[in-house]
Amino acid sequence: MTIEGGFDRRGDGPYDLMNGFGAHEVVIETPRHETNVGTLGEKQFEEMLRAYRDRILDLREDKRFRYVLIFRNQGVEAGATMEHAHSQLVALPLVPRAVSDELAGAEEYHKDKARCIYCDIVRREIEDRARIVSENRSFAVICPFAPRFPFETWILPKRHSSYFEDATGQEYVDLARALRETIVRLNRTLDDPPFNYLVHSMPFREIENGRYHWHIEVLPRLTQVAGFEWGTGFYINPTPPETAAQMLREIAP
Amino acid sequence: MTIEGGFDRRGDGPYDLMNGFGAHEVVIETPRHETNVGTLGEKQFEEMLRAYRDRILDLREDKRFRYVLIFRNQGVEAGATMEHAHSQLVALPLVPRAVSDELAGAEEYHKDKARCIYCDIVRREIEDRARIVSENRSFAVICPFAPRFPFETWILPKRHSSYFEDATGQEYVDLARALRETIVRLNRTLDDPPFNYLVHSMPFREIENGRYHWHIEVLPRLTQVAGFEWGTGFYINPTPPETAAQMLREIAP
Repeated sequence: MTIEGGFDRRGDGPYDLMNGFGAHEVVIETPRHETNVGTLGEKQFEEMLRAYRDRILDLREDKRFRYVLIFRNQGVEAGATMEHAHSQLVALPLVPRAVSDELAGAEEYHKDKARCIYCDIVRREIEDRARIVSENRSFAVICPFAPRFPFETWILPKRHSSYFEDATGQEYVDLARALRETIVRLNRTLDDPPFNYLVHSMPFREIENGRYHWHIEVLPRLTQVAGFEWGTGFYINPTPPETAAQMLREIAP
Repeated sequence: MTIEGGFDRRGDGPYDLMNGFGAHEVVIETPRHETNVGTLGEKQFEEMLRAYRDRILDLREDKRFRYVLIFRNQGVEAGATMEHAHSQLVALPLVPRAVSDELAGAEEYHKDKARCIYCDIVRREIEDRARIVSENRSFAVICPFAPRFPFETWILPKRHSSYFEDATGQEYVDLARALRETIVRLNRTLDDPPFNYLVHSMPFREIENGRYHWHIEVLPRLTQVAGFEWGTGFYINPTPPETAAQMLREIAP
């Protein structure tokens, strides 16, 4: 049996087996029975983000892990199975396809232009303003150019950095504000919508090559994924990002 | 402006624009207000499948099209926005990512083993029996080895063929029976679940290279796609395919 990227490649047929190694942790941000994370304060967000970082720094010591995904499912339609506010961490022995695809896209752009695509996005959106939701010292909050979902919102650090866990103390403070404000804006604009958020960060022990730029994607779940999406990987989104950004911008967080 | 695979590649920034060329058609299978396609008879299924073929044969004459996706959204949770039974056809000026990924997988397998992976799957499942739902002269109905969704079911032609529109008259008859029976089994086992089905076929004007094998995938929508799935492209499925196949097998269609 040879293990290759976590897969047991067997030579004799159409199926591969993967070993079951991994870790799954739940981050419970409050002892009170809050059902929406938007009710928590900025300080609690900051502690939550520091808990994410501490857990990543611990897990990456285990050389078998290649990637840690951090995410939140808020609301039943976003896949939450418990209503008490919580987020989750899954450590994997391989780099998932969704992550390697994004890295490959950033790599291709860098090969072509010798610049980080996310740095270019931050610069262009700050100039254009039309898709900016908010901005602080360290972060830009935008509705991306070609969103999959109505009101999809990304939180991007202004400083180029590949790893979430390498953020500075000031950046965690500023991210706590940006993430909390974004969730409150979504809650007020869309009446507490179901959503997922995901931390996109570089896989462990990849060479820091300047091509990837960690960020957080917030995905409200207002539309159904249907046959067209499953069959193509394209997403039908009825809300232009400029409209979404304007509505989010105009509501007080 | 250069159009490349439907994309307008602009050299100066992070965004590409795609032209809006395409076709979208709705196939309405019955004049009666039926809300579940499972109530239709075998003959109506056969006419529906022949309508799919006729529309594909017509649309592929337009050299701008590279791919036609045929799909059904059954039920609100599967993305249906009209309740009267209907399916849809979308013709696209490029090969979607989900399709080219599947082709690349089949190609890689063929390079390694000089066999079609779908032919190998059909052979192995018919031998094993554990994941077989039903079988007729021309088709095998299986719950696949590593399904994304509980009760995910595939309908595979036994004869190797890349294009849905190249099926024989007998094959459309046998497919009508296999598809209708599969939907009735799902309806009876799971109390009319929401589902999508998708016809997977070779993109137009690809060289028939023996590596692809058209088929239909039926995707019941019983679980929510959540943060883990968006962040990884991996799917958490609580129902082993052997359990699903046994339950579907044991119910009379």
